[in-house]
Amino acid sequence: MDEGTKARVRASFAKQSLMETFGASLDALAPGSCTITAPIGANARQQHGVGHAGLTFALGDTAAGYAALTAMPEGAEVMTVEMKINLMAPAAGARLIATGRVVKAGRRLTVVTAEVEAETEAGARRTVALLQGTMIAVDPAG
Amino acid sequence: MDEGTKARVRASFAKQSLMETFGASLDALAPGSCTITAPIGANARQQHGVGHAGLTFALGDTAAGYAALTAMPEGAEVMTVEMKINLMAPAAGARLIATGRVVKAGRRLTVVTAEVEAETEAGARRTVALLQGTMIAVDPAG
Amino acid sequence: MDEGTKARVRASFAKQSLMETFGASLDALAPGSCTITAPIGANARQQHGVGHAGLTFALGDTAAGYAALTAMPEGAEVMTVEMKINLMAPAAGARLIATGRVVKAGRRLTVVTAEVEAETEAGARRTVALLQGTMIAVDPAG
Amino acid sequence: MDEGTKARVRASFAKQSLMETFGASLDALAPGSCTITAPIGANARQQHGVGHAGLTFALGDTAAGYAALTAMPEGAEVMTVEMKINLMAPAAGARLIATGRVVKAGRRLTVVTAEVEAETEAGARRTVALLQGTMIAVDPAG
Repeated sequence: MDEGTKARVRASFAKQSLMETFGASLDALAPGSCTITAPIGANARQQHGVGHAGLTFALGDTAAGYAALTAMPEGAEVMTVEMKINLMAPAAGARLIATGRVVKAGRRLTVVTAEVEAETEAGARRTVALLQGTMIAVDPAG
Repeated sequence: MDEGTKARVRASFAKQSLMETFGASLDALAPGSCTITAPIGANARQQHGVGHAGLTFALGDTAAGYAALTAMPEGAEVMTVEMKINLMAPAAGARLIATGRVVKAGRRLTVVTAEVEAETEAGARRTVALLQGTMIAVDPAG
Repeated sequence: MDEGTKARVRASFAKQSLMETFGASLDALAPGSCTITAPIGANARQQHGVGHAGLTFALGDTAAGYAALTAMPEGAEVMTVEMKINLMAPAAGARLIATGRVVKAGRRLTVVTAEVEAETEAGARRTVALLQGTMIAVDPAG
Repeated sequence: MDEGTKARVRASFAKQSLMETFGASLDALAPGSCTITAPIGANARQQHGVGHAGLTFALGDTAAGYAALTAMPEGAEVMTVEMKINLMAPAAGARLIATGRVVKAGRRLTVVTAEVEAETEAGARRTVALLQGTMIAVDPAG
């Protein structure tokens, strides 16, 4: 992947205040894939003390969005059209690792998936959610 | 709706640190419905300066979950099995208003929808997202 | 709704051999809505003898698609981008009645919902499924 | 996989009249996966002459359901709770090949995915749809 695309994604990610609120970092970026990691922080819990589905969704959606952006024309911005999440286990552990992937890149619409894993301090991983959705390339001027 | 259920939902909501992070309040609760409001805060934006899809999802999912809880047996807790969101407009304005509704309450599984509206300071509303999903009643001891 | 749009939708519906296989009829059409009815026929069952989820989906998806087409520019064709279905009760009874509705019509993408009801010979109705999805306007010339 | 489970799935598949209407065959069955193939028949088309989304959905949903059934307790039946489909290309060609897979098998709920490919007479394959959903184990007596 060219350095321009990488820089573009990193600059966009840095502007997302929600990712900063979650302490998230963009850990890996390659053509058609993106990995975002965030702690299961004290500010992002649900009523049972594990990570809120909103945290899991936000990380998976964002990883899927930037995976899609790597496949879009230069200058395009990415927005979520729709996203579906199946939650498979509580978001318990030290951190969440969300990996987004492009399934089919079209001119305007890109089909994506994301897997979100929870990792303990000891490094044990467990899949907590699977996402499947559609991203759209938008003209930043439009 | 009996006062016990109301108190149970409010106590559960108060334990969700993500809702506190978003400055969200539980504004209305009735059998089969729940409304949650939150500002489109400076800490919950995406790269274009409007509310992040993760904020919209979190509010819609939580409103749908508590709508479902009002229809569940006393003592049950609620968890999201799966949720789908269609985003229809940018989350721009002063605040988001999420209204969750029960479509079909079963013994274990409850089908829910939620609508999320953005409201300007002047009070103009616009639908930004529609959610449809499944909630499950879980035994808090289990 | 103008007669041209009505004629266009009816001509398109008549070309769908799957609708003929199911014995489906286009019962109502108005701006932003469409109703399709079909018997729960002997050729469309699942293993327990009730209507197959594929029948329910096909009727709901088609009703939603033609609801969307009523809101699209003249000459456009409609295709499903994605669709989600929650099944709430077995498709038991004499017939299924699928009602599609436009939630948000955009230039290219239209957000739709559909409700599918089962009706007994005696006329009792029960909701069996709820669908939510995205339709796209396509240029028939490609 | 034991012969009992195989026989149980094949007997259940044989009872689905919709699969017979589509000329579908159960081509492969292994623990956690199932493959179903059907021609893109003259009786299952949409208005542009390619396979209807209802055909694609029915094959993907059924393959996912039987993949889930291989992971369920003996004697259980399987039903679809919810299913989401993203359509990526027209269902054009000679036949559709749907492969269902178990992502997470729980006591009651099983998360599944399915991929549906179109194959030409010459054997060229193209992914036309991706499905993600939830199956539930039901007691046939209940």
